[in-house]
Formats: sequence, C-alpha cells, structure tokens
Amino acid sequence: MPYSSLISAFDLHLENYCKVILQQKPIELYEPESYILKLGGKRIRPLLALIGCDLFEKDYKIALDAALSVELFHNFSLIHDDILDAAPLRRNQPTVHTKWNTNIAILSGDVMLVKAFKVLENYSADEFKKIHLLFSKTSIEVCEGQQNDMNFEIRNNVSVDEYIEMITNKTAVLLGCSLQMGAICAQANVKEQQAIYNFGKHLGIAFQLLDDYLDAFAPDKDKFGKQIGGDIISNKKTYLLLKALNVANKNQLNEINNLSKEQNNDVKVKNMLQLYTDLNVKQLCLNEADKHTQIAIEELYKLNTNSLKTKTLENFALNLLQRSI
Amino acid sequence: MPYSSLISAFDLHLENYCKVILQQKPIELYEPESYILKLGGKRIRPLLALIGCDLFEKDYKIALDAALSVELFHNFSLIHDDILDAAPLRRNQPTVHTKWNTNIAILSGDVMLVKAFKVLENYSADEFKKIHLLFSKTSIEVCEGQQNDMNFEIRNNVSVDEYIEMITNKTAVLLGCSLQMGAICAQANVKEQQAIYNFGKHLGIAFQLLDDYLDAFAPDKDKFGKQIGGDIISNKKTYLLLKALNVANKNQLNEINNLSKEQNNDVKVKNMLQLYTDLNVKQLCLNEADKHTQIAIEELYKLNTNSLKTKTLENFALNLLQRSI
Repeated sequence: MPYSSLISAFDLHLENYCKVILQQKPIELYEPESYILKLGGKRIRPLLALIGCDLFEKDYKIALDAALSVELFHNFSLIHDDILDAAPLRRNQPTVHTKWNTNIAILSGDVMLVKAFKVLENYSADEFKKIHLLFSKTSIEVCEGQQNDMNFEIRNNVSVDEYIEMITNKTAVLLGCSLQMGAICAQANVKEQQAIYNFGKHLGIAFQLLDDYLDAFAPDKDKFGKQIGGDIISNKKTYLLLKALNVANKNQLNEINNLSKEQNNDVKVKNMLQLYTDLNVKQLCLNEADKHTQIAIEELYKLNTNSLKTKTLENFALNLLQRSI
Repeated sequence: MPYSSLISAFDLHLENYCKVILQQKPIELYEPESYILKLGGKRIRPLLALIGCDLFEKDYKIALDAALSVELFHNFSLIHDDILDAAPLRRNQPTVHTKWNTNIAILSGDVMLVKAFKVLENYSADEFKKIHLLFSKTSIEVCEGQQNDMNFEIRNNVSVDEYIEMITNKTAVLLGCSLQMGAICAQANVKEQQAIYNFGKHLGIAFQLLDDYLDAFAPDKDKFGKQIGGDIISNKKTYLLLKALNVANKNQLNEINNLSKEQNNDVKVKNMLQLYTDLNVKQLCLNEADKHTQIAIEELYKLNTNSLKTKTLENFALNLLQRSI
C-alpha cells in the first residue's frame, strides 16, 4: 500500500481525538461520536486530504487536522443520513439512532458537525479562513445532494443531468474538497488547488457511476460487498434506470413500468439486466464513468508535481475505481 | 425603545438574507429556514450582538453578520429541539417537522447550522478566527446543555448546581457569546470582551431562573405568555423543585413525591405552590436570580464605556428580566 504511513498517522490522530472526546460530558454526545468513528471504513477522505498536501511536497502531518475535519463531517452525515433512511445497520453494526435513540443521534451529529469546523481552528487565521470557505460551501452542497436524492425518490421526471448533479453534490465534491484542503495546507496556488479539486470531484462522479454499474453487473458479489441487483429491486433511480427511461421505445417503457411492480425479485433483476444490455445503457454507464475518470486524470496531469507522486496517485485512483482498495 | 434603529437594521439584514436563500434549491432546505426565521421572536441575541459592538463606540452595522450568525444558530437549535421535544407548535405556528417532516427538519437544520458559521466568513481572517473560536465553543456548550436537560428528565438525583450549569449552557452562554461577538467586531480588548460576555451569561442565568419563578408565580399570565404551573404539572426539574427537594424534611419529601403523581392538576399546582412558599424556595429562587443580576451589572460597570450607553444597556437588561420587553 503506497500510502500506509499516511493512513497510520491518521489512525493515530483519530485515536487520540477519540481518547479526548471520551473524557467529555455528557457521554450521550460523545460515545456515539467515538462509536461511529471506530466503525471503520476506508478513510478515503482523510487520506485524500493528506495526499493533497503530500503531493505538493509538504509534510503531510500538517494536514492531519484537515483530514480529521473531513472524516468528522463524513461521519456526522452518516449519523443523520441513517436517521433519514431509517437504516438499522451501518457496516454490519447498529446505527447510532438504533443503538441509542433518534434524539441522541440528532444531537450528537450536531456536535460532530460543529467539531468538524472547530478542529480547523488549529490552523493560522489565513489558512483557517481559506479552508473554511471551501469546507462550508462543500458541506452545504452535500446536504443539498442528500435532499435531492430524497426528492428523486418521489419524483417521476428526473433527468440524467440532474442525477449527475445530485451525485456530484452528495458524494463527489467532498472528495475534491478533501484534496484541496490538503493542498491549501501545502500552500499550493489557486490554479493547483482547482486542478486537484477537479481531480477529486470527477473521480467521485466516476466512483458513483461505477457503484451503480456494479450494483447491477458486479462479477464478484463478495468483492463488491452488496447484494447484486439491490437497486433494481428497490426501483432506485440510478444512472442505468434513468438512461434506460431516456432511450427506451414505447414497448420497452411499458416493460420497465411492469417490471417496477414485479414481485418476484429474481425475475425482476434478470429481465431488467437484459433490458439494460439491450438498450446499451450497461455500456453507456461505463462510458460515462470512463469520461469522468479521463477528466480526473487530465486534471491531475495539469499539475507540475513530482512525477512519481503523481503516478502513485493516478494508480491509487484507478485501483479505487476497480474496488481493489 | 432605545435600540429601535439597531432592531430595524437587523430586520432589514435578515429580510435580505431570506430573499437570497429563497432563490436557492432545493427549496425543501430553504423554505423551512426562511419560515422559522420569519416566525418572529424578540431577536434578543442578534440585538445583543449589535449592542456589544455599539457599546464600544463602533458602528453597529459592522456586527450585522455576527448578529445574523447567532440568530441562524438559535433558529437551527429551535428546529432540532422541536424534533427532540416532539413539539407540534412554535410561536403558535406548526413546527418545521410538523409542517414539513422530520427528515426535512433534520437536514434544513443542518444546513442552517453550517450557514451560521458561513456568514461569519464576511469578516477579515483575524476577526473571523477570533469570532469562530468563541462561537464554536458556545455552540457545543448549547448542545451539551440540551443533552443534559434531556438527561435530567430521567435522572432522580439532579443537584441545584448541576441545574445551574445546565441552564448556563443551554441558554446563558449564547447571550454572552452574542455580546462578545459584537465586542470582537468593535475591536474591544480581551478584558472588555470577558466582562461583556460575563454580563450576558449572568443575565441569561437570571432570566432562566425568573422563567422558573414566573412559571409558578407569575402575577399576570397573559404577560408571561405561558400556562401558570405548567412546570409543576409536568414534574419538570426546575430550580424551585430541585431546591425544594434539597431543603424539605421527610414528610415534605413524601408530599412532593405524592403530588408528582397527583392527577388533579388544580390540586397539584395549588399544593406545590404552598410547599414552595412554606419551604421558602419561592424567595430563594428570587434571591438566586438577584445574585446573578447583580453579578451581571457589576461586570457591565467594569467597562470603561460611555456612561449613557452603559446605563441604557443596564435598563434594557432589567426590563428584559421584568418581561417588559
């Protein structure tokens, strides 16, 4: 793993943070925070913050608080999103509102959101303001993406463009923001900051599109880690479904409509997958993901950074998209 | 009204802010924000922010964004607290989670919390960081106070000191913070900032203690605006009840215990009021409120500010405590 020292440094930083908050009261606000932070996850966002600093030849350790900030924000959003989705489990463990209750989940999430901004106060006034401007803008975009995702569930006329915008806000901008926060710590200039942000954003869009693809067509269920066809069974408005609705003829639209009400899940999944293949949306989804991957890589190579580090990051990104990380 | 120009300036600032957010999408995040902001209220916190600036002889208009920030935070906390309390009404209108739904109330509250910090970005980097340090600390204290308030509902051994600490966090620190934010805008020194903060904090404690007192003993129900005896009926652990539990003998403790289960509300309220009078806690509550009022005024007169402005603020504070504002 090329970034193992960065991950170890972040894990230690997070461990120390959790030790401190667990000494604070009332424990109802801080035990849930420590609990969700310790549920794990791949720590992609904090790692990107450290990489965004390291890439510009500064000691990645100066970005540890920026990394902590994005991880706190991400986990705050998981606590509140799990309430919105009424999700009982997160990483195979009870969600915060299930393990404690909804009130504690709301309030401990609120404190975590404030803390995500508060840990940034360790930076100098100038850096703090630069990072804050980016981070507050991004935080609002993430909430807007989450609200649009909920809106799409009950809307019938969602366009593919709206969908791309929604996943950009809900998922992709925080990846761009993480990298840019690291770049700000490293004193990168505005043009460099923009390029590394765009790299992260388009990587995030590609990741989400491939998530839609793999939900339907993953060759290896265990590696993907979710039930194949889950999106089809729940009629989720993914890129595949929205694009299919876009290119289908009248008969095919009828079939999609009928399948949406099909009670036999095996039949539903099998026939929808066949339709996605017939309509070529299986390939169109891969093409769209490829397009954003290409844009991401182009943005990365705009940077005049150490070629070895650039290549390492490119490979890391490609492995991430292939779920090899 | 001595501060009418400050209030008008804030109302206009808030009006303009609401115009901008109502043009943003998704509307599910911004309509609730505008809705709760326009429900009214006395705008005490933003007014204190403007007063905190004006007192140090600077144009109060430079504190308008600090004032907006505390009002956004206060209203965010109302949206989320109303979910926690399952409250159907706020200022005689449906609460956000009732008018829309709980998911929208959680998420629009989250956005509002971020915006409360974001509007502070209009200050210079140095001012921004100073204000942020204070405001983030205070925000966390408010959440801690709210959690302790919920904890006290199910705890049987709450001490009077713990109660004072809880109301300090839940209510009083935000008043101190509002004034200090204004003082920071006015470039007041740290000693001055501390004094004006303490003034606001002790004013807030006195206000809350008088709120407990008036809930039981208000001479004029309409002026107080709430049902007399509401706290007694709901067995709320107020200063009066906690102090009564503290000074009562065994027989009186039994009576309090029996009254807590009394189904006839008129009997319950009448007998508890008699006990509060017999145990002298009616007077002890007034004494405690007076003590904090005195501390507040002493802190105010530590300041070497324009004596007319100081006197105006003292009168404003005393009128606020007497519910004449």
